[in-house]
Amino acid sequence: MVNSKSIQDYIRTIPDFPHEGIMFRDVTTLFNDARGFRMAVDMLLHPFAGQPIDRVAGLEARGFILGGAVAHQLGIGFIPIRKAGKLPHDRIAQDYQLEYGQATVEIHTDSIQAGESVLIVDDLLATGGTAEAGIKLIERLGGKVAGCAFVVDLPELGGRQRLEAMGVDVHALTAFEGA
Amino acid sequence: MVNSKSIQDYIRTIPDFPHEGIMFRDVTTLFNDARGFRMAVDMLLHPFAGQPIDRVAGLEARGFILGGAVAHQLGIGFIPIRKAGKLPHDRIAQDYQLEYGQATVEIHTDSIQAGESVLIVDDLLATGGTAEAGIKLIERLGGKVAGCAFVVDLPELGGRQRLEAMGVDVHALTAFEGA
Repeated sequence: MVNSKSIQDYIRTIPDFPHEGIMFRDVTTLFNDARGFRMAVDMLLHPFAGQPIDRVAGLEARGFILGGAVAHQLGIGFIPIRKAGKLPHDRIAQDYQLEYGQATVEIHTDSIQAGESVLIVDDLLATGGTAEAGIKLIERLGGKVAGCAFVVDLPELGGRQRLEAMGVDVHALTAFEGA
Repeated sequence: MVNSKSIQDYIRTIPDFPHEGIMFRDVTTLFNDARGFRMAVDMLLHPFAGQPIDRVAGLEARGFILGGAVAHQLGIGFIPIRKAGKLPHDRIAQDYQLEYGQATVEIHTDSIQAGESVLIVDDLLATGGTAEAGIKLIERLGGKVAGCAFVVDLPELGGRQRLEAMGVDVHALTAFEGA
């Protein structure tokens, strides 16, 4: 039997969430489907096959679901990049801009050894602000970013260009126009 | 080579986090170790080997890391049980008591078909309030809870008895006294 459903077919679009005018791309329907979830994890790793990757970093919170599965598939460790105040041990913080105001993400300082290669995973690439902050955290700890892997890219928001301008390899499984 | 480290050896204890008097059991060091993470995922599933499980539900946020890996290992779909206001589609909510005040978790109503068997995964069993709310959500949707699997149990807080009193099979990889 051929699986005729693409990754995009498993993703549900919800108009006006969380605000009016936003077309929210809901990956919970992808993750909740046995075949969709496995396809997503496999396909996220295809561009990195044969590359040495030491750890997987996931961006809170949906990046934890994917990142846990990706780290498990690779048989390597997982690093959470969390919102401020959640990590209990020595950590560094990185601020980033939101549409209104700013936010902060943190990483444990002992989560990476200098020179290690880290793959960043998240469900969705919008403006790239959170991923950019994640890249900076990893690089500040002496790590090397193997790449950023997303399920969904919203190309109109320019996140890919922003991350590629940092010299990072960016991959997404699918793109939606009309972000 | 024999792996002489136990699951407990990979877990870091942080005194007085998030408040004075709390011995915080930090599983990020377990998840960040390739061998520790894989052992944890394998061992979480040992009690359920041979049982039919249709989906894995993870409790936000550390349960997402484990739950993503467990769902991937089983080749089945993942359901997020999230804090209020995070899920974008039709959902039901369940309140539960905290030490001071209360909190709410939510699940998408279409995430389970009636009669399906769901394994609940989280890093830590304390009072069991969140897990109890998760069980109620799954049962309200007509699902059957295959069991609850935790990395750490804090037996002094009575979570196991609370969940077992609901008729649920509860397993934890390790226990810490002095919660």
